[in-house]
Amino acid sequence: MTPSTIFLIFSLLFSSSYAAVQDFCVADLKGPEGPAGFNCKKPDSVTEKDFAYSGLGTPMNISSLIKAAVTPAFVDQFPGVNGLGISMARLDLAVGGVIPMHTHPGASEVLVVISGSICAGFISSANTVYFTNLKKGDIMVFPQGLLHFQLNAGGTPALGYVSFSSARPGLQILDFSLFGNELPTDILNKVTFLDVAQIKKLKAVLGGKN
Amino acid sequence: MTPSTIFLIFSLLFSSSYAAVQDFCVADLKGPEGPAGFNCKKPDSVTEKDFAYSGLGTPMNISSLIKAAVTPAFVDQFPGVNGLGISMARLDLAVGGVIPMHTHPGASEVLVVISGSICAGFISSANTVYFTNLKKGDIMVFPQGLLHFQLNAGGTPALGYVSFSSARPGLQILDFSLFGNELPTDILNKVTFLDVAQIKKLKAVLGGKN
Amino acid sequence: MTPSTIFLIFSLLFSSSYAAVQDFCVADLKGPEGPAGFNCKKPDSVTEKDFAYSGLGTPMNISSLIKAAVTPAFVDQFPGVNGLGISMARLDLAVGGVIPMHTHPGASEVLVVISGSICAGFISSANTVYFTNLKKGDIMVFPQGLLHFQLNAGGTPALGYVSFSSARPGLQILDFSLFGNELPTDILNKVTFLDVAQIKKLKAVLGGKN
Amino acid sequence: MTPSTIFLIFSLLFSSSYAAVQDFCVADLKGPEGPAGFNCKKPDSVTEKDFAYSGLGTPMNISSLIKAAVTPAFVDQFPGVNGLGISMARLDLAVGGVIPMHTHPGASEVLVVISGSICAGFISSANTVYFTNLKKGDIMVFPQGLLHFQLNAGGTPALGYVSFSSARPGLQILDFSLFGNELPTDILNKVTFLDVAQIKKLKAVLGGKN
Amino acid sequence: MTPSTIFLIFSLLFSSSYAAVQDFCVADLKGPEGPAGFNCKKPDSVTEKDFAYSGLGTPMNISSLIKAAVTPAFVDQFPGVNGLGISMARLDLAVGGVIPMHTHPGASEVLVVISGSICAGFISSANTVYFTNLKKGDIMVFPQGLLHFQLNAGGTPALGYVSFSSARPGLQILDFSLFGNELPTDILNKVTFLDVAQIKKLKAVLGGKN
Amino acid sequence: MTPSTIFLIFSLLFSSSYAAVQDFCVADLKGPEGPAGFNCKKPDSVTEKDFAYSGLGTPMNISSLIKAAVTPAFVDQFPGVNGLGISMARLDLAVGGVIPMHTHPGASEVLVVISGSICAGFISSANTVYFTNLKKGDIMVFPQGLLHFQLNAGGTPALGYVSFSSARPGLQILDFSLFGNELPTDILNKVTFLDVAQIKKLKAVLGGKN
Repeated sequence: MTPSTIFLIFSLLFSSSYAAVQDFCVADLKGPEGPAGFNCKKPDSVTEKDFAYSGLGTPMNISSLIKAAVTPAFVDQFPGVNGLGISMARLDLAVGGVIPMHTHPGASEVLVVISGSICAGFISSANTVYFTNLKKGDIMVFPQGLLHFQLNAGGTPALGYVSFSSARPGLQILDFSLFGNELPTDILNKVTFLDVAQIKKLKAVLGGKN
Repeated sequence: MTPSTIFLIFSLLFSSSYAAVQDFCVADLKGPEGPAGFNCKKPDSVTEKDFAYSGLGTPMNISSLIKAAVTPAFVDQFPGVNGLGISMARLDLAVGGVIPMHTHPGASEVLVVISGSICAGFISSANTVYFTNLKKGDIMVFPQGLLHFQLNAGGTPALGYVSFSSARPGLQILDFSLFGNELPTDILNKVTFLDVAQIKKLKAVLGGKN
Repeated sequence: MTPSTIFLIFSLLFSSSYAAVQDFCVADLKGPEGPAGFNCKKPDSVTEKDFAYSGLGTPMNISSLIKAAVTPAFVDQFPGVNGLGISMARLDLAVGGVIPMHTHPGASEVLVVISGSICAGFISSANTVYFTNLKKGDIMVFPQGLLHFQLNAGGTPALGYVSFSSARPGLQILDFSLFGNELPTDILNKVTFLDVAQIKKLKAVLGGKN
Repeated sequence: MTPSTIFLIFSLLFSSSYAAVQDFCVADLKGPEGPAGFNCKKPDSVTEKDFAYSGLGTPMNISSLIKAAVTPAFVDQFPGVNGLGISMARLDLAVGGVIPMHTHPGASEVLVVISGSICAGFISSANTVYFTNLKKGDIMVFPQGLLHFQLNAGGTPALGYVSFSSARPGLQILDFSLFGNELPTDILNKVTFLDVAQIKKLKAVLGGKN
Repeated sequence: MTPSTIFLIFSLLFSSSYAAVQDFCVADLKGPEGPAGFNCKKPDSVTEKDFAYSGLGTPMNISSLIKAAVTPAFVDQFPGVNGLGISMARLDLAVGGVIPMHTHPGASEVLVVISGSICAGFISSANTVYFTNLKKGDIMVFPQGLLHFQLNAGGTPALGYVSFSSARPGLQILDFSLFGNELPTDILNKVTFLDVAQIKKLKAVLGGKN
Repeated sequence: MTPSTIFLIFSLLFSSSYAAVQDFCVADLKGPEGPAGFNCKKPDSVTEKDFAYSGLGTPMNISSLIKAAVTPAFVDQFPGVNGLGISMARLDLAVGGVIPMHTHPGASEVLVVISGSICAGFISSANTVYFTNLKKGDIMVFPQGLLHFQLNAGGTPALGYVSFSSARPGLQILDFSLFGNELPTDILNKVTFLDVAQIKKLKAVLGGKN
C-alpha cells in the first residue's frame, strides 16, 4: 500500500460527511437573527480571523467622571462566538472608577482581576448582598440575571476581564433603565418609591423624559 | 460636572453594546422558521404592541355541541413570545363542555380556573390516571407530552387559562389524529384495537378517509 | 384469544419499562436540591394532589399601603412543577396598588388580566421602555431577566395571573435589593448615583443597614 | 530529560483537575432521581461493563397474539446512558406483529430496520399522517411526542432498533392509557367520543376499571 | 347532531392553531443555517419521504486497506432530523477493519452490533480507557466529545449502527486532524510530542502539508 | 404611613417566596453529583467566600521541561460555579512553553492573553486548522469539543486566562489519552496508524502500559 492509496481511501470514506460538517457558526451579522443567534457564514469564507479578536487590547475612552469603561466582545463585536454560549468584555476602572449596578438578563459572569483591586458584589433574590474585595488574580462569579457592580477598591487603576455564559449576555444598567428613557416620572415614583425630585435630577443627567 | 457631561460619557461608554443588544426576538412571521423559532423583527420596528395581545379577551365561537373553545396565543398568534419559552391559551367550556383528550408534544402546561368548575386529568407513561375537580382559583400542571383532558364539572360555564413552557407547544387532539386524516382503517384497527365499525363511525364524523 | 390473555401479554411486553418510567419529578422538598431542581418523590407516593394546587384561590393579605399582593406557586409551594419548566403566581392589585419594579433572573413571564385594568411594562437592554394598559382578558409577555412592573390602572381592584418559563423563576425586587440589606450606603451611592439622603430614607423604610 | 521526568511533570500539572473530572454520570439506580436523571456512581467503581449492555441481544418473549416485543435499554436497564441524552430499544415483530400506537413524551426516535419489512408512521399536530413501508436498512425518524406506530409489513419476522434523544424517553401506549386504568368510562366517552360499548370491551381486555 | 356538524365545529375550534402548528422542522438544505440548525421546509411541501431515508441500506465502498466504511445519516444527508436532536450512521468493518480513533464534538453515541464482533472503546478525561468486545446484539455508549474507536474483533465482516444525540454530531478523526492539513510539523511536534519523522511519514500518507 | 409599616407589608407580601428562593447552587462537594452538577449547599451557609476564588492568583509549578502550567477553577476547585454554565483556568507558559493538544468534551473556551505572546489554534471536523499568534489583550474562541493547543510564541513568559461555557468542561489531553493508560499497543497502532516504536517510546514517557 502506498500513502496516496491510504489518502484516497480515507477521502472516499469520509468525503460525504466532510463537505457539510460544521462545528461552529460564525455569525453573518448582515443577515437575520433568530432566537438561537445569527445565521452562519459559509464555512468556505471562514478564516482564523473569525475566531480571534483584538478589540479588547485597549479600553474604550475612560472618562474623567465615571472613570471606567466596559469594552464588549459579544457576538455583535466578535461574530466567532455565535452559538457557542460564551463571550467576554474588558473592564477598565481608573482610580475611583465604578461599573454601575447592572444585570445581564441572559448569562452568568466570571470576573478575573488583572491589575489593581476591585470591590465587586451581587444581590440575590433572597435579598442578601455578597460582596468582597478582589486583588490581582482573584476571580468572582455573578449568577445569571442578578444585580451586581464593580468598583475600584485601590489607589491605582484596575483592569479586569469578564466572561459570560452566552454569546449575547445582554446588559441592563440600572440607572439607564430607570432614568434614561421615557418611562413617566409618576410611574417610576410609584414602582420604585424614589422621590420625584431624585427621579427628576437623574432623568436630567441621563437623558430621561416625561 | 454637568448632567449633560455625564450623559455624554455614559453614552460613549456603552454605545457600542447598545446598538446591538436585543433581549427578545419578536417573530417575523413572514420570514423563514428554524428549529428555535422565527427570525426576529428588527429592534427598531418593535413596539409595546408586540408584547401585548388582546386575542384572548373573548373566546372563539362556542358550539352548542362540543360546548367548548380553545383560543390560542402561541407564537403564530402572538409573535412576542418567540424564543421566550412560554405561551398561553384560553379555554371556554359551556355547561357540558369538554376539551377532548390531547397532548402537547413540546411543552408542559399549567391551568388556572377563572370561573366555574373543571374536571381535569392526565395519564402517565406508567399508565396511571391523575384527575381531580378544580374550582375557581385552583391550578393544575400537566407534564410534557402526556395525554390529558378538561371538562366542565359544574352547572355553569367555566373559563380557564393555560400556559405552556414553549412558544409553540403543539397540539395533538386524539380524535383528530386517529379519525381525521387518511390513515387507513385497517392499519388503525391493528394499532389501536378499536373495532372497524367504531373507526368508520368516527372517521365519518371527523372527516377521515380510507 | 381472551381479554385476559391480551392483558397478560401486554403486561409481559412492557413490564420492564413500566416499573421505572416516570414522566414527572414531583419535588421532595425535604431532600437536597441540585441545579436542575429537587429530587423526585417516589412514584408510588405521588397522587393527583401533587399536580393540583389551591393556594392561588385567595390572595395573601393586601395591605392598605402598597395595595397589592403576589401569591406564588413556584416549586417551593407547588412541588408538582419541579423539573417541568413552568410555574405561576397570582397578582392582586387594589385601587392604587402596585407591584414594584422587579426582575425574574431565570424566567420569562406572561400576565393575563382577569379583572380590572393593569398598566404593565418592562425595560430592555437597549434602554427602551415598553408599557401599556391592559384590560380584562389582555395578556403581556415580559422577556427573561428584564426589569418590569405592574400597577392598577383603573378605579376597581385588579386581578391577574402570571406564568413563568421555569419552576423557580426567582424574584428580585429592586427596592429590596437596593435598600433592604447590608450593602453600605457609600457603595450604593457610587453604583447607583442615588443621593445619600434618598438612600438613607429608603433604607430606613425597608430595613437596610450600613 | 528522562521519560519519568516528563511523566512526573504532567502529573503535577494536571493532577488537581484529574482527580475530579468526570465526563459521564453512570446512574446509581439505588439512589434518588432528579429532573436531570440519577446521581452518578463514584468514578472509581465505574468499569467498561457500565457502558456496554447485552440485554438487547435477544427479544423478550414474543406472544402468538400481539406478535411483537419491545425490549428497552433506557437508563433504568442501562445506567451508562444517564445524563447523556440517548438510549435504545429493540423491536421484534413476528409475522402480523404490531407495535401499537404510542408516544414518547420526552424524546424523538429513529428506527433502523435490520430484517424484514416494517410499515411505520406518525401523525403530526397538523393532523397529517406520514407513513411508509421500510425495508432492511431503511431508517425513519419520529419527532418528539407525536403518536406513531410500527407493524410488520411482510411475510417474515422483522427486527428493528430504535434510538431516542433522551436517556428516559417515556412510553405512553394509547390503548393502555385509555383502557388500562381507572379513568371512568363516562369521562372517557366524553373526551374521546368512543362509544361506551367500545370502551367497555377494551377496558375488559386491558384491565381497565370504572 | 350529525357527523358533519361535529366536524365543522371541531374545525372552527382549532383552525387557527392548525394552520401554523409544526412539530418538526425538515431542513431546507439550500437555505442558510443557524446555531440551532437549518431553516424549515414549508409544511405543505413535507411528505413521508422527508422522514424516511434509504441511504444506510448499503455501505459506501469498503477499501481493501482500511477495510471499513462510515455511512452517515446526519442532517446533511437526512434533512428530517433537523432540530430533533438525533441522527444515525452505519459502520461496516471487513475482517481486520477499523474505525480510527475519533471524537464527535457535539454528541453522545450508542452503537448496536448487527453482525460480527466489534472491539470498541473510549478514553475519559480522567485518562482511563474503557474498552470491550461486543457481539451481535450488544450495545455500547460513548459519552460526548471523548476519543473512541471501533475495530473488527472477529473473523467475519461486522456491521453496526450508531445513533447520536444531535442532528449534527460532528466527526473529528484524529489522524486527519493531526496529519491531513496545514498545521506545521514543528508545531505539531511540540504539541503532541510525536517525533518529526513519524509526523512526516503520516503527513505524507494523509495529505498534510508544512 | 411609617417606614416600619411599609417594611412590614413588604415582608408579609413576599415572605413565602423569600424563604426558598435560590438563584444559585453552590456545590456541596461532599455530597453526590448528578448529570446537572452537585447538590446545593444550604443557602444559609453560603457566604461571599463561595463566589470568590483566589486559586488562580499564582500558577501551579511550572516545570523546566514542559514550561507550562494549567491551573483550573472548575466546579471541583470553585464550587460557586456549580450549575451556572461557566468556569475558568489560568495558563502559564514560560519561554518555549506549550499546552499540549487537547479537547474539552463539554464546553467552548475563550482565551485572553494577559502578557507575552501565544500561538493558539484548533482543528475543525472539516479538518481545517485555524491558528494565529495572539498578543497581549487579544482573545480567541475554541468551539466545543475540538482539538486545540496553545504555545508561547515569544521570548518572554506568557500568561493567559481561559473561560469555559460549563462549570465542568472536562479536559482530554491527547498524549495522556493515547499513551498514558492501558490501551494495548496493538490496538493503538491500528486505530491511530502511529508506528509501534513511536507508541512504545511515548508510553514509556507517559506511564502507559500494555
